[in-house]
Amino acid sequence: MASHSEAGQVRPGGRTARTREAVCRATLQELAEHGYGNLSVEAVAERSGVHKTTIYRRWRDVDGLVVDSLNFAVDDDWQPYLSGDVRSNLLRLAEDALHAFTDPETGPTHTAVVAAAFQSSRAEAAVQGFFEDRFGRASAIVETAIAREELPPRIDRYAVIQAMMAPIYFRLFIARNPVGKEDIEQAVDVALAAARNGVFDRNSGDRS
Amino acid sequence: MASHSEAGQVRPGGRTARTREAVCRATLQELAEHGYGNLSVEAVAERSGVHKTTIYRRWRDVDGLVVDSLNFAVDDDWQPYLSGDVRSNLLRLAEDALHAFTDPETGPTHTAVVAAAFQSSRAEAAVQGFFEDRFGRASAIVETAIAREELPPRIDRYAVIQAMMAPIYFRLFIARNPVGKEDIEQAVDVALAAARNGVFDRNSGDRS
Repeated sequence: MASHSEAGQVRPGGRTARTREAVCRATLQELAEHGYGNLSVEAVAERSGVHKTTIYRRWRDVDGLVVDSLNFAVDDDWQPYLSGDVRSNLLRLAEDALHAFTDPETGPTHTAVVAAAFQSSRAEAAVQGFFEDRFGRASAIVETAIAREELPPRIDRYAVIQAMMAPIYFRLFIARNPVGKEDIEQAVDVALAAARNGVFDRNSGDRS
Repeated sequence: MASHSEAGQVRPGGRTARTREAVCRATLQELAEHGYGNLSVEAVAERSGVHKTTIYRRWRDVDGLVVDSLNFAVDDDWQPYLSGDVRSNLLRLAEDALHAFTDPETGPTHTAVVAAAFQSSRAEAAVQGFFEDRFGRASAIVETAIAREELPPRIDRYAVIQAMMAPIYFRLFIARNPVGKEDIEQAVDVALAAARNGVFDRNSGDRS
């Protein structure tokens, strides 16, 4: 992908970075308002004020725009909150994720990317990578809990995070039910009960 | 909605029923192949061989087609498998759902309806109703387990089903990971561990 080879040349705050920001923001807005099925390089060019030949050269096509815009939208410095006990750290994680997908400012674009994954295999791969990255980082909550002897040592860290987050995303994007404080607490308590009862235990051959 | 008032007049196997079947099948195929964003009454008319004035009269618009096609695709007689112990009944439930969404014949249309819910509030309401209906019926698995004293009596039946199914749908449609036998077993064991440890207990004021 053209944007990959150029990424090394980007100076923060330089013209290339400003162009990327304008194009990615326009892509996310178009996605949120019209969906992947109606996304076009022409509409992104018009909205961003960046000439479409520049967009075709750097991003190649609509899928290139979606993938780079997801990377743009993701906060690379994100780390989970680790200062409380395991339950409060997990609650905070779930609340932050819920906020990102329901906040009027960030929700529509995040949701549009999840929706785009139904229609584009490159968007699908990008979304898959996003969750792997986030859940991988969030596993530090479980690691910390094990170090503090709040959870047994042999559990699959990633599986705890996935079990806790899945019901929230399921209600939001599949069953289409509201997600309240009691839903978040139940999701956390389900994951903790399972973790404490051996459901996530790895085989003895595995390492952390 | 026009199709509602006419539903009472439909004789099984009659011309009205055959028209509905042709139109709903065509809608589901169009959805699976081109997505909600590209669905049109014209395309459904051409594919089904039903005149578009008939479609406009009975289904009114694209959303009317999507909602009625979801109802058409749903097996009204569905009941959960109840013959095993609670764990094997839940495993069977999860396997059947996974099959419905990944089988080459039924998977693409079911998936297309879930995707349409991102773009249409009427499709969203229909999908919401589908999961409420299915999880409500599947709650009989938990009810049966309580009657057999496999699970404590005070638990929220629906919450057990949701906790068990959420990780499967999450992997399929959000995180975009494969769902294997071990994922299904883990989802079932997470829900059972939580149920046995009081996570789904209702307040004493609730009734079953």
